[in-house]
Amino acid sequence: MREVVAFQGVQGAYSEQAIRQQFGDSVDVYPCPSFGDLIDAITSRRATYGMLPVENSLAGSVSQAYELLMDSDLRIRAEEIVHVHHALIATSGTKLEDVKYVRSHPQALAQCDKYIKRNRFEAITWYDTAGSARDLAKGNVTHSTNGTAHTGVVAAIASELAAELYGLEILAREIEDLPFNYTRFFLLGYDDPEKGEYNKTSLVFAVRNQPSALYDCLGEFATRGLNLTKIESRPRRNRPWEPIFFVDVEGHWQDAPLAEALGRLLQRASFVKMLGSYPAVKTNWVGI
Amino acid sequence: MREVVAFQGVQGAYSEQAIRQQFGDSVDVYPCPSFGDLIDAITSRRATYGMLPVENSLAGSVSQAYELLMDSDLRIRAEEIVHVHHALIATSGTKLEDVKYVRSHPQALAQCDKYIKRNRFEAITWYDTAGSARDLAKGNVTHSTNGTAHTGVVAAIASELAAELYGLEILAREIEDLPFNYTRFFLLGYDDPEKGEYNKTSLVFAVRNQPSALYDCLGEFATRGLNLTKIESRPRRNRPWEPIFFVDVEGHWQDAPLAEALGRLLQRASFVKMLGSYPAVKTNWVGI
Repeated sequence: MREVVAFQGVQGAYSEQAIRQQFGDSVDVYPCPSFGDLIDAITSRRATYGMLPVENSLAGSVSQAYELLMDSDLRIRAEEIVHVHHALIATSGTKLEDVKYVRSHPQALAQCDKYIKRNRFEAITWYDTAGSARDLAKGNVTHSTNGTAHTGVVAAIASELAAELYGLEILAREIEDLPFNYTRFFLLGYDDPEKGEYNKTSLVFAVRNQPSALYDCLGEFATRGLNLTKIESRPRRNRPWEPIFFVDVEGHWQDAPLAEALGRLLQRASFVKMLGSYPAVKTNWVGI
Repeated sequence: MREVVAFQGVQGAYSEQAIRQQFGDSVDVYPCPSFGDLIDAITSRRATYGMLPVENSLAGSVSQAYELLMDSDLRIRAEEIVHVHHALIATSGTKLEDVKYVRSHPQALAQCDKYIKRNRFEAITWYDTAGSARDLAKGNVTHSTNGTAHTGVVAAIASELAAELYGLEILAREIEDLPFNYTRFFLLGYDDPEKGEYNKTSLVFAVRNQPSALYDCLGEFATRGLNLTKIESRPRRNRPWEPIFFVDVEGHWQDAPLAEALGRLLQRASFVKMLGSYPAVKTNWVGI
């Protein structure tokens, strides 16, 4: 059976770019309106996998993605990292100097703020990056506020993939202000993946309410030479100010040192939830 | 001289509620368009202090607030916690059963999602909670999409304070789906505050890229019996995937155990930045 990979957004989203990086261009994709629908698509078997953005090197973690990882029983099958480049996109024949308004998701607008100001465009908040391109292609090219229609040429800020998919023209490439714009994705699925050459294990846990609880939990990894590549605290729902910790650690749960550390962590923690051991992208960061 | 306290948003914002909790109702407030403007208002001395939201018990940390804490040299003078209650607000004489659209900031809409669905309202994304109330008061009560004006009664979701300030009617109180909705604020100023009865110290630091670096840094607090009440990792700008850690620890920098721990941390870390020691709200959470 052919694999279908779900993602949040409309076609041309950066999530779709992540899917193509992982599976190639001939993959079947399944666009979902929300992250929750992406999870449902997998659990209901309408999709084989789902590509979920979890953090961006500029904006930090995607809160809702981490909430869903906590709530669902899906497993992480792989990680994928996309170098995000924004393009200025318009309908065919549009000249750069005629553009007056640019539409995009607030995060993309913020990431191109200097470019937008330099060109004296007016930024208009749109629900989605790729959606701003799709809506241009549909002929939605006027801007309105409170029922008053202004005329003025509208462009979109989205991926080059979106321009290609919707038959639009790229007026400018790589217009983001900062070059270090990477988004990290988890490929989610129902079953555990094969063990890879280099693996990471992702966990979420809460500590018991006693002094140095986190320090003691991290010690189970540190004293066994197991490197953490990420730790992030988030609020524990319905228990204000009590954090839960999302941790990525090098290694596979089947390997002895990690298996031992996990057993000890389980004994110390308030709860531990396994998100998966999966083949991962090697970075040179071990300082946690 | 009378104290002027800056906040982000328009009058009636939850930040203004935090200011009134701290200073009483007769305080002079100074609304700012952005968090950056709030910081500028203090450094340029147009405002004495600024009230900055840093985390919410449901939504987690306010990313931009933490970025600004990292970039500015202001000091935290106090913390304030607001129990957030959303109200459904409309122009005078509006009946609940006639409301068709509700406008608010996406986060407030999400927090009242069940209430909105139960009442079959259509949610419209607005730039600000208090702004959605103010715009109703200005007579902006029609909803438009792509230049097409729909008729239908519009209500706003904002604070009761906003309803009061703009002379609007409260149709329903405490419409949020989850009761544990608290926002934590830092009161920022130019100088350090007096030492209080119960103090916290907030720091940001990065670790050197070596195994168990974070574990060893946290050990300087844990081994001295100093409780952390928060730890949060965020991406370090221009160094993708290298985290910086925002930490709140019980105690004042002038007290011996903390002073000693800070000296040792400084010796271990890649950098340490002091955000301030300040009188704080005591919670019963010490498990970090």
